[in-house]
Amino acid sequence: MAKKKVAIVGGTGYTGVELLRLLAGHPNVELSIITSRSEAGRSVSELFPNLRGRLDLCFSEPDTALLKRCDLIFFATPNGTAMQQVPALIAAGSRVIDLAADFRIKDIAVWERWYGMQHACPALVAEAVYGLPEVNRDAVRSAQLVANPGCYVTAVTLGFLPLLEQNVVSVGNLIANCVSGVSGAGRGASVAMLMGEAGESFKAYGVPGHRHLPEILQNLSHATKQEVGLTFVPHLAPMVRGIHATLYARITEAADYQALYEARYQHEPFVDVLPPGAHPETRSVRGSNDCRISLHRPQQGNTLVVLSVIDNLVKGAAGQAVQNMNLMLGFDERAGLDSIALLP
Amino acid sequence: MAKKKVAIVGGTGYTGVELLRLLAGHPNVELSIITSRSEAGRSVSELFPNLRGRLDLCFSEPDTALLKRCDLIFFATPNGTAMQQVPALIAAGSRVIDLAADFRIKDIAVWERWYGMQHACPALVAEAVYGLPEVNRDAVRSAQLVANPGCYVTAVTLGFLPLLEQNVVSVGNLIANCVSGVSGAGRGASVAMLMGEAGESFKAYGVPGHRHLPEILQNLSHATKQEVGLTFVPHLAPMVRGIHATLYARITEAADYQALYEARYQHEPFVDVLPPGAHPETRSVRGSNDCRISLHRPQQGNTLVVLSVIDNLVKGAAGQAVQNMNLMLGFDERAGLDSIALLP
Amino acid sequence: MAKKKVAIVGGTGYTGVELLRLLAGHPNVELSIITSRSEAGRSVSELFPNLRGRLDLCFSEPDTALLKRCDLIFFATPNGTAMQQVPALIAAGSRVIDLAADFRIKDIAVWERWYGMQHACPALVAEAVYGLPEVNRDAVRSAQLVANPGCYVTAVTLGFLPLLEQNVVSVGNLIANCVSGVSGAGRGASVAMLMGEAGESFKAYGVPGHRHLPEILQNLSHATKQEVGLTFVPHLAPMVRGIHATLYARITEAADYQALYEARYQHEPFVDVLPPGAHPETRSVRGSNDCRISLHRPQQGNTLVVLSVIDNLVKGAAGQAVQNMNLMLGFDERAGLDSIALLP
Amino acid sequence: MAKKKVAIVGGTGYTGVELLRLLAGHPNVELSIITSRSEAGRSVSELFPNLRGRLDLCFSEPDTALLKRCDLIFFATPNGTAMQQVPALIAAGSRVIDLAADFRIKDIAVWERWYGMQHACPALVAEAVYGLPEVNRDAVRSAQLVANPGCYVTAVTLGFLPLLEQNVVSVGNLIANCVSGVSGAGRGASVAMLMGEAGESFKAYGVPGHRHLPEILQNLSHATKQEVGLTFVPHLAPMVRGIHATLYARITEAADYQALYEARYQHEPFVDVLPPGAHPETRSVRGSNDCRISLHRPQQGNTLVVLSVIDNLVKGAAGQAVQNMNLMLGFDERAGLDSIALLP
Repeated sequence: MAKKKVAIVGGTGYTGVELLRLLAGHPNVELSIITSRSEAGRSVSELFPNLRGRLDLCFSEPDTALLKRCDLIFFATPNGTAMQQVPALIAAGSRVIDLAADFRIKDIAVWERWYGMQHACPALVAEAVYGLPEVNRDAVRSAQLVANPGCYVTAVTLGFLPLLEQNVVSVGNLIANCVSGVSGAGRGASVAMLMGEAGESFKAYGVPGHRHLPEILQNLSHATKQEVGLTFVPHLAPMVRGIHATLYARITEAADYQALYEARYQHEPFVDVLPPGAHPETRSVRGSNDCRISLHRPQQGNTLVVLSVIDNLVKGAAGQAVQNMNLMLGFDERAGLDSIALLP
Repeated sequence: MAKKKVAIVGGTGYTGVELLRLLAGHPNVELSIITSRSEAGRSVSELFPNLRGRLDLCFSEPDTALLKRCDLIFFATPNGTAMQQVPALIAAGSRVIDLAADFRIKDIAVWERWYGMQHACPALVAEAVYGLPEVNRDAVRSAQLVANPGCYVTAVTLGFLPLLEQNVVSVGNLIANCVSGVSGAGRGASVAMLMGEAGESFKAYGVPGHRHLPEILQNLSHATKQEVGLTFVPHLAPMVRGIHATLYARITEAADYQALYEARYQHEPFVDVLPPGAHPETRSVRGSNDCRISLHRPQQGNTLVVLSVIDNLVKGAAGQAVQNMNLMLGFDERAGLDSIALLP
Repeated sequence: MAKKKVAIVGGTGYTGVELLRLLAGHPNVELSIITSRSEAGRSVSELFPNLRGRLDLCFSEPDTALLKRCDLIFFATPNGTAMQQVPALIAAGSRVIDLAADFRIKDIAVWERWYGMQHACPALVAEAVYGLPEVNRDAVRSAQLVANPGCYVTAVTLGFLPLLEQNVVSVGNLIANCVSGVSGAGRGASVAMLMGEAGESFKAYGVPGHRHLPEILQNLSHATKQEVGLTFVPHLAPMVRGIHATLYARITEAADYQALYEARYQHEPFVDVLPPGAHPETRSVRGSNDCRISLHRPQQGNTLVVLSVIDNLVKGAAGQAVQNMNLMLGFDERAGLDSIALLP
Repeated sequence: MAKKKVAIVGGTGYTGVELLRLLAGHPNVELSIITSRSEAGRSVSELFPNLRGRLDLCFSEPDTALLKRCDLIFFATPNGTAMQQVPALIAAGSRVIDLAADFRIKDIAVWERWYGMQHACPALVAEAVYGLPEVNRDAVRSAQLVANPGCYVTAVTLGFLPLLEQNVVSVGNLIANCVSGVSGAGRGASVAMLMGEAGESFKAYGVPGHRHLPEILQNLSHATKQEVGLTFVPHLAPMVRGIHATLYARITEAADYQALYEARYQHEPFVDVLPPGAHPETRSVRGSNDCRISLHRPQQGNTLVVLSVIDNLVKGAAGQAVQNMNLMLGFDERAGLDSIALLP
């Protein structure tokens, strides 16, 4: 089978280099184009030396005509960019996966409030499929435009999903205490993300409000068919990769919660429910597309504690985008996503 | 004023070296003895090179007769050791601060269940003063035996205290999501604490039950005069020092929570309530005896989020012990504890 | 083509888990046996959770009869173990790759002095092929017993090789200043490798003498056909993976050194000579089998500086072992070694 | 004795916060002014939360009239700033310590080549005293203008000094292989110093030429009274603080090198010669003004290896500046510099 041609628009950040790594090793696609205004003409392996010898491609100026010839286009651009450029591509029949937030939130007013800009193409938001395969697998297959989920959002949604779908916990006071490595903040120069600032320290941030909150709420409400109350507190840990979500929910209905998780995810290729008593480590998914989950009920009390880990750049971004691409282009859902996590 | 003589029993761990650092720079005491069976005869600065030129002392075999001549004795031994040796010293009139857990839990049955051994001197537990100065300052001053609090316990108790003393939150479903650096696990050889295991990764541990839970419950119940329900989840972060507690409580009574915290701690030398909107970083207390706290009410909902950070080896162990010593020996409470946190 | 069966003797350390990761993803082999006396009966994925869902195998008691049925056996045991067990396997016709040091040093007296034990089978040392494919490719192909090189040794040898083979530098006063991540010290419990000891700090160690010195000298002398003088200083950096060698040599003969390196390694699948002016980072080879090298001549003086990086667990251990296996079993030399380094 | 008034010009970087920490705890001075155009009006403890409760001061606009009233002025500004502002202050009789490079290099042409700008006041360079107390103690006492040494420069100079002063090694081919934590690069936003870039990786940089090279050469030539040849290779380690220098020199004259170091530094308050066989760790000087040095002669060969560690922000910057201030203002040289390194 001839390889499909894919493109990346904007690929100089961490999501970009991770997409490059995964696509360079993918058996069914050929990465034809990667655009970057700032780096046009430069070899990708000069910017990202891990790709030396594995990917012979240069950044190029964006060129819609060339992009249209590709079978699928990834947008790895900052929030607010894809919504400007995607409409023309969609109109031309292209298929697109946006790794930013432009098409994730169905309620335009909510999106505009949290992202602080006016949306350029609300109609496309309605059409876009939210790319969480564990929830929307079939819709993704046939989608023309996929909104790839946020990193925290993926870890929290997969962690809460079985409880909410089965309505066995109180949905008014959920808590998601999340921790991310620094790569989640991207590759832009900033004082806060200097190693001198973020190294050997731990802190919460964005407690008054973080943009992933409305996206999580949308997912959880969809799962439980009710309005959901959630306190979401993100933290920054002194490590490069990984998200760890510690989720708290009050029990409302007795059930074999472990069995419920195992049943929900038994056919999912990338969700791994650990045996009772286990504690997942972020390094157990470093570089892999897995989400590992374990479930606890401390002292047999009325609070369930769910632990959910992903690699923020893989299942939380580029890996999930490749998984969505696999569905859209009819490949094996696992294609190009078989690398085992690097431990230690 | 002549300096008081103090001793450390068992000082080869991280709590020990931190006590050595603080006592070597203390204006009112002279460290006369540090015992260690395994390191007897060896210079402390050979084991801990940061002390070269600052402390000229060798580890010695434990000798009760010599210890009794000291004005105060710190026990920095593993759990279960102090309870064997302290009774004789107490009987001889010595004053003791135990940095381990032997005298922290008033309910002997609870202690024995969580620590897995029979208590050797229950009567002394009843007499011991729990050494959290922010709660027990006066009792500490006159105490003969002080039980120095656990590290997580200090961060969580100081974080919840104003809310519980004022009974403005629901006490049945408190949550303490805590994160510690690796030094909290001590200096004993173990695979789990190798940098190859703990580096660049994040995980929860002890979710089914951690020994600090009963101690926290004891403190919180004491503050609120009711039984308290708490879910406590400790995590390990890839850093050396620091504890960060993220505390969640449901509001039951409206109040100016920020004002309440500021009032409660306004005269406390080592508790710093940050301005509204702030997020404390563990590095802001690295090497210092401070506890920094901030308070949030996300989206003006019904959940309060309290952030509380300490250095686990200082306010969480050796610094708090020195603070207790200062009270017991009539020094300025801040003596020897004026070093400013190392940032970056 | 039917997959070949391979076994690992002793696989509970970092070399072991890395071999497991690489072999689990290898297209031409099936991992049939992994032995460990201490972990017999336990699932490998319980010990190494990154392997969950990718490798369904349990540790077993060593059983020579079963091992003999395998096409190739890896020894990932501590120094001194393989030399006891390998003779019987060799006598039975098995092919073996030893990842420890037992068969690396041809001069038995030297080996015994540095490793502090008597060698159990000096005759096999003479027969063993030193498994550095860039030097011994053809001999490896037909070898029955391969001694897999040390991690520092690989980085230093590949870095110096072109200069020594061409005799363009003084060989009497070479300097190898090397830095390793903590995984190089293995997965055994030790105080020195606790994150509380090795985190956020940097130090040299073993300056009076390190076991990799005689092995490096053997390689360099072989390359230059003369006796070589080398000062080798290893250091420990606060990171998990990676070796960085900074090599210094005095120029004795003018040459286009860059061209010399490019020519020497142009057909090597795993040695990458960077363009002039570059500085390789250890993360550019994290998880990959590459060695990246760059060459500098500061201020056009008489000292050449060569920078050479590898992942100590891949090209420095398990990856090189798989490369050797590929040669021995007639596979593509790159088989199972195509994963791209994880950056960031 | 009334406290002396001191000022800091430009104090928003890591050198600035470290000066603030040391001066806030200094017994003989009062920090009166800290200027910053960008942060004028903001509380220093808002920018640097470790100072909360310890320093009640706001950044202010630079005001020469106010600066002149201080007994001493520190410049913690980027290279090229002090040379513009210092002449007026010197003319007015002020005493100044510049922590940047403006007055370090006596040869103006060399300075201009390495720093890429024209020098604004060459005459002052001639007058400035190079502030390495171990070499220039008496000159510093009476200096009006002190050029505080570079961080790498301090570690390398103190490490080589005894050998060069005694002329027992070859000075034509010295090697300084140095490693720094990320705080050495300052607090300016940059991609290269993001934790996502610098974390969990190790690399050399600036091998073709680093600005500290001419400064080191100036010091070493001064010590040995000859021209010196040096290869200097700086590296970046994934840690926040610390410099480790590994120095290599060829022996030309037999001597008791250990005794030579001990004699040279026996009266130095901040240079600690370790016993034979030791390896200094950077953490043993974290937060302290010490330089710890050990000496090795591997295999009794002809190469000496000197290991020298400092905290780049203390003995490598702010601590050395305070040491110079102590000399200039007639205080005990150790005043305000008695804090013990933080280990672990």
